[in-house]
Amino acid sequence: MSEHRPFSERVRVRRTPHKARYDPAVIRKFIDEAMFCHVGYAIDGQPMVTPTMHWRDGEKIYWHGSSASKMLRTVKDAAVCVTVSHMDGLVLARSGMHHSVNYRSVMVLGRANKVDDAAEKERQLKIFVERLFPGRWDSLRPATAQELKATTVMWTTLSETSAKIRTGPPADDEEDYTFPVWAGEIPLRRTAAEPSPCPRLPQGLEAGADVAGFLAWMKRGG
Amino acid sequence: MSEHRPFSERVRVRRTPHKARYDPAVIRKFIDEAMFCHVGYAIDGQPMVTPTMHWRDGEKIYWHGSSASKMLRTVKDAAVCVTVSHMDGLVLARSGMHHSVNYRSVMVLGRANKVDDAAEKERQLKIFVERLFPGRWDSLRPATAQELKATTVMWTTLSETSAKIRTGPPADDEEDYTFPVWAGEIPLRRTAAEPSPCPRLPQGLEAGADVAGFLAWMKRGG
Repeated sequence: MSEHRPFSERVRVRRTPHKARYDPAVIRKFIDEAMFCHVGYAIDGQPMVTPTMHWRDGEKIYWHGSSASKMLRTVKDAAVCVTVSHMDGLVLARSGMHHSVNYRSVMVLGRANKVDDAAEKERQLKIFVERLFPGRWDSLRPATAQELKATTVMWTTLSETSAKIRTGPPADDEEDYTFPVWAGEIPLRRTAAEPSPCPRLPQGLEAGADVAGFLAWMKRGG
Repeated sequence: MSEHRPFSERVRVRRTPHKARYDPAVIRKFIDEAMFCHVGYAIDGQPMVTPTMHWRDGEKIYWHGSSASKMLRTVKDAAVCVTVSHMDGLVLARSGMHHSVNYRSVMVLGRANKVDDAAEKERQLKIFVERLFPGRWDSLRPATAQELKATTVMWTTLSETSAKIRTGPPADDEEDYTFPVWAGEIPLRRTAAEPSPCPRLPQGLEAGADVAGFLAWMKRGG
């Protein structure tokens, strides 16, 4: 029954050779399996949290937005926290206190850097699109220099990260296991519904392998 | 075709009589339709973002955790940002730059307060459980004074909040609508899978109306 044992653990990784051998792979996996993150920063001492999409290239996590974005102008060279969370299930116990959540989360602490080079910016945006929609980038109307200028791409390194995970059934007090209330896990999933074509799409234009690739990624639990 | 028009708007609400008449209802709705939020705070100037569950009682948003939690000890009386986000869909455009996300999000800025009174703490935890699992609280093994002590409940008022929403198809450059690439929206949903009973559940104990209530709430898009 060991696969049913509740498992809750915090993995704190500072990039030392000692831990780097195994923990960073878990952290990269949690990051790559999510589309969205929440970026924390401060404006005049007031914490702010903005949801956005992210991607990873090697040992860096990236996000982007309009160059006019207050968030992106604020975080440049500033301390940020990029949190990626997967809410995997609700855990219902016999007592209120032992109710819990099964989840995987990664917290990346660092300084936000801006990609200045236009070619590198375009390369990163391609990685971003391609990781979700394989083959899509080259089928798009090519980006103009002005569009690239209007887009800000930020990154921070994965050098200071921590991961937390909980899996499994409730962990009740020993004497409570016979208490007559239903207990267990309700798994939660993020799923994609049927794509809805743009009302102005030319007739006969069907979704291609890029969209199919995304839907397959979602089915695998992306 | 007006219902297909892309819609992107920011509603900033300061609790003035003028705006309070309509915007707070939208903000309360976005908060109530989500289970999870991300709490932003700072430790020695380093922004931190922690995912957690939340609930609302009147004009306050609540979250909770172990009294040993570093986050909860840190945020007491400190500035926080509680962000609730619904990622409703990916928007695929004809150019990279016009790709977007359909979403609803609320940012609550405020100071975190701790519920000190034990009776009020228990009342809030009951609201939390009951809003997702109607009828469950009274079927649980009752909370002990020690358990309540070991649980911290925090709140912040909804007096300074902003909401953002985007819905609808891509908004491409006018000359791009005939570009031969699929464009549209891929709706995203959070769904619940089949509940998985605790391996130590006594035989014959079935999930009740509380779990059914939660599954129905999820199906309505919770």
